[in-house]
Amino acid sequence: MTDRMQRTDLAVELQENLEDKEILSGVRVSTRVNEDNDIKETRIVIDSEEGSVKFGKPIGTYITIESEELRLCDEDYHVPMSQALCGHLRKMIGTSRRILVAGLGNRAVTPDALGPYVVDNLYITRHLLQEELIHTGYEISALAPGVMAQTGMESQELLQAVVREMKPDLMIVIDALAAMNSDRLNKTIQLSDSGIAPGSGVGNHRKAITEESMGVKVIAIGVPTVISVPAIIEDAMDVMLAAFGRSGMREAVEELTDQERYELAGEMLKPYLAKMYVTPKNIDEAVKRISYTISEAINQLHHSYI
Amino acid sequence: MTDRMQRTDLAVELQENLEDKEILSGVRVSTRVNEDNDIKETRIVIDSEEGSVKFGKPIGTYITIESEELRLCDEDYHVPMSQALCGHLRKMIGTSRRILVAGLGNRAVTPDALGPYVVDNLYITRHLLQEELIHTGYEISALAPGVMAQTGMESQELLQAVVREMKPDLMIVIDALAAMNSDRLNKTIQLSDSGIAPGSGVGNHRKAITEESMGVKVIAIGVPTVISVPAIIEDAMDVMLAAFGRSGMREAVEELTDQERYELAGEMLKPYLAKMYVTPKNIDEAVKRISYTISEAINQLHHSYI
Amino acid sequence: MTDRMQRTDLAVELQENLEDKEILSGVRVSTRVNEDNDIKETRIVIDSEEGSVKFGKPIGTYITIESEELRLCDEDYHVPMSQALCGHLRKMIGTSRRILVAGLGNRAVTPDALGPYVVDNLYITRHLLQEELIHTGYEISALAPGVMAQTGMESQELLQAVVREMKPDLMIVIDALAAMNSDRLNKTIQLSDSGIAPGSGVGNHRKAITEESMGVKVIAIGVPTVISVPAIIEDAMDVMLAAFGRSGMREAVEELTDQERYELAGEMLKPYLAKMYVTPKNIDEAVKRISYTISEAINQLHHSYI
Amino acid sequence: MTDRMQRTDLAVELQENLEDKEILSGVRVSTRVNEDNDIKETRIVIDSEEGSVKFGKPIGTYITIESEELRLCDEDYHVPMSQALCGHLRKMIGTSRRILVAGLGNRAVTPDALGPYVVDNLYITRHLLQEELIHTGYEISALAPGVMAQTGMESQELLQAVVREMKPDLMIVIDALAAMNSDRLNKTIQLSDSGIAPGSGVGNHRKAITEESMGVKVIAIGVPTVISVPAIIEDAMDVMLAAFGRSGMREAVEELTDQERYELAGEMLKPYLAKMYVTPKNIDEAVKRISYTISEAINQLHHSYI
Repeated sequence: MTDRMQRTDLAVELQENLEDKEILSGVRVSTRVNEDNDIKETRIVIDSEEGSVKFGKPIGTYITIESEELRLCDEDYHVPMSQALCGHLRKMIGTSRRILVAGLGNRAVTPDALGPYVVDNLYITRHLLQEELIHTGYEISALAPGVMAQTGMESQELLQAVVREMKPDLMIVIDALAAMNSDRLNKTIQLSDSGIAPGSGVGNHRKAITEESMGVKVIAIGVPTVISVPAIIEDAMDVMLAAFGRSGMREAVEELTDQERYELAGEMLKPYLAKMYVTPKNIDEAVKRISYTISEAINQLHHSYI
Repeated sequence: MTDRMQRTDLAVELQENLEDKEILSGVRVSTRVNEDNDIKETRIVIDSEEGSVKFGKPIGTYITIESEELRLCDEDYHVPMSQALCGHLRKMIGTSRRILVAGLGNRAVTPDALGPYVVDNLYITRHLLQEELIHTGYEISALAPGVMAQTGMESQELLQAVVREMKPDLMIVIDALAAMNSDRLNKTIQLSDSGIAPGSGVGNHRKAITEESMGVKVIAIGVPTVISVPAIIEDAMDVMLAAFGRSGMREAVEELTDQERYELAGEMLKPYLAKMYVTPKNIDEAVKRISYTISEAINQLHHSYI
Repeated sequence: MTDRMQRTDLAVELQENLEDKEILSGVRVSTRVNEDNDIKETRIVIDSEEGSVKFGKPIGTYITIESEELRLCDEDYHVPMSQALCGHLRKMIGTSRRILVAGLGNRAVTPDALGPYVVDNLYITRHLLQEELIHTGYEISALAPGVMAQTGMESQELLQAVVREMKPDLMIVIDALAAMNSDRLNKTIQLSDSGIAPGSGVGNHRKAITEESMGVKVIAIGVPTVISVPAIIEDAMDVMLAAFGRSGMREAVEELTDQERYELAGEMLKPYLAKMYVTPKNIDEAVKRISYTISEAINQLHHSYI
Repeated sequence: MTDRMQRTDLAVELQENLEDKEILSGVRVSTRVNEDNDIKETRIVIDSEEGSVKFGKPIGTYITIESEELRLCDEDYHVPMSQALCGHLRKMIGTSRRILVAGLGNRAVTPDALGPYVVDNLYITRHLLQEELIHTGYEISALAPGVMAQTGMESQELLQAVVREMKPDLMIVIDALAAMNSDRLNKTIQLSDSGIAPGSGVGNHRKAITEESMGVKVIAIGVPTVISVPAIIEDAMDVMLAAFGRSGMREAVEELTDQERYELAGEMLKPYLAKMYVTPKNIDEAVKRISYTISEAINQLHHSYI
């Protein structure tokens, strides 16, 4: 059910949702908390087709970094998070030097503006290197391709055209994601080397942007800025079923088959599915702050290796 | 229950929600459809304290104009709606000439940007009249006071200060509202002479802005741009209870007292209430278009009387 | 001298600047004033290489529409201008149906934001036609490619990539221009079928975008939003020389050769050339209004032929 | 001549312009370069009416901090400059705790957007202290009052209204300034305790905002983002007169009286004066970066004393 209803774009939430923390073959999970900076990192590696199907995500590595601070801090863009992100990025990028950054999403819809905002703050170097105004460092170019209602074009086809022309070694794609748990909004950054597949994000404004469709390696950076409506409805359903259970209708509730639960949730969802998004009222501050954290992480690539 | 949970800011939805279309003393309702332009107008007049309490809105006149076109039309800002709105405005304004327009809300949060966007497109004349660059017409001044996280001040106190200094005859306050029915979003404009009371809108970014608090008459123009989360949860609850009814648990469901239903909904709501908003994915286009319709309605005040 | 110092991007100003209104072979000029709407139209056709070299513009047709109203009117986006522009556009477009609109320039620099603002207000139809949500009309796609400091890419190379992928029949390119006469700012629209060559515009943010470089016909729409610094300096020089002439130094002044005048102007220019722009203080209102006039002209293409 | 033509808003440029570095009674100047961070600081204290008249600035202290880095650095917001600014601010603020920050200027005109952008990035605390969400620190409120074309109100009158209502201890006013030397643009921050008087800035969008008009102490922070047109014209005139001097007309040139020079410059200026501004093409990056430097300086006030 989870997959079909797209409850979350976060690998770490799919993992938490596995019943009994079952061990899936082809999926390895490791977690560590850095006590210096309170950043929790979860690494999920999916390395077989079987693991991919069961887990509900393409083969690849998914790194989640979370920090309570990222959400709370009002004054700063959170240096430790951007340093942690930069470190992981550097490893995924390896020896690539010519990098195209794509900020997906709609600049005019607050929780979907994460990608364009990151692009706004990048230190762009491709033209400086070509004009020999600088002489070393990564060659960064960037684009916020907009959304179909603005351009008439899929992000995917626009980026394919640009990649063919610019021939970067690697793409970094930034996008806003959907989470199922409101506690995770705006304090979690997911990094993966599997690109971006159509999901439950704010706008669903893209077909797959992956190594397969682009012809170059694609690193995806995502932050959950909306709660998926399916997740809200299911939460409501859980509360309600629990209430009925308490009030003596336990048996009736337990009689519901999975199929019936699924259909019930679907019926509750119908008016909203795929047309609405749910987001916190202070989403403007969150998107501004976290987009800055991410752009700084990318800008720090230029610094001498740590 | 309805009131306490703030299901809607729209008088017309409160009216539709009255069981059996009961006739409340102190509340008069009339409706008409203009067949030339497909605009439906509903006028609700609350003229007694009793009506106000029962209906759940302050004493005053609430005019709702709705048009399917306002939502569908992609190319235009809908001239018939702005003309209809201008006509009603003109009557409410009467002989006042010095008008302060306040665009409430947060420019950086898409569904809450309606008010600031209206202000952006107004034809401002106060300084032109004072400098004698023009010689007739309404004296329009305008302000988008921002929200407390941006200024540290309530909209209410900022506007009180400005009104004391500028001494307008009348205020027009624009704000984004919450509806309970997603079909009403972005195609309904509510106009009232009772000002704006704290409600379930996007940001709840104000204490009451009314004749009482401001010292001048306050006309409010609002458009529902978000669905209230209570409304979504109650819709979900209704679907679920109906499903249980169908599956033989009718009695159990019917046994729920109003109080139990209220508590159940409250429990379902808890994680979201007052912190989240729900809005359509194309809200950027809707807010841009409707804000233009409203600013044109105000700009047309300057034209010779129709 | 004129060319080398890029005094203006407007064909109509080059024409006015010709001494004695000399008749250039290969250049035809016609003017008409529409008395109904006070719009003055100047058509300059350059149809030989010789005319092109002497006139200082590529071979092609340059239509200038001017209206005092475009600058004065504060309430409206000037329907007559957008209708006049739409009429000329329709003839230049001919039977092409698949159109890519490119809004050149930097959204973050006010007088250079004209192109991106036009794109913001277009009625985009490419995806609607492809998804069969509409069934007739022009297929419009659009892009604001940004500037090199933002993307690391030339507008030219980005647009070449997109044209290769999307294969439109025709491009419309919008750009902010430089004029030499401040009276012409923000009330003139230049339309040409020769594309855009590097010029003295705000940002010089492009290599040539022409049929030759793009592989499809390119219609250019431009509006002068800045005064060229060379023009200001030359104006200052003219005033000064006239003053010296009046004060008895006529002979000394008249002794200045063209080469000396050129060198003198160059010396006066040195600190500013190519790094500064000069624009009116109310440029924000002008760019907003005129970009709307242009986007409406393009949107009106969809209407039934007039 | 200098004053009447408003060549500069910078005290440091007025000082440099004094012939023979004459010592004005009532004006004290001191300079120091911090070799650790390459920041040059100039302190000009005007402490008598006579000094004020001769110097052309109100009585008060004018501190200029300059750094080549502020202009060159593309990746960072320049921590040393914001720390230096914070240090001076802290001393001027003294024991005041309730501070209203006003970001003057027009957000829609790039070089004039400095003030609004600073406000966008401030850490606002007034409401947090009032709601007891935080318990110590400066009480910061902030407002970007817009410009008269947007509101119909002078910044001065709007701020007077707010000050009367909010009763802060002190105001910090941020504004874009005009310099006469293009080398100073975007790398100089001027801090003064004399408030803001009408000047040659981008928009001249205010009557005086001073302790006298506001009733509370006013600290002004300004950055030159435009070159004054009078300065450009005078530069051109100087180049031209030098050229004539070289070409044997020395006597004629030397015969020009000051009055004639002034009238000549005025004639050259006429078409542009007070209606145009001159600014670098990359002003968007400069304003974004420096506004961040300033907002960080104000945000650092909250940190424990250094």
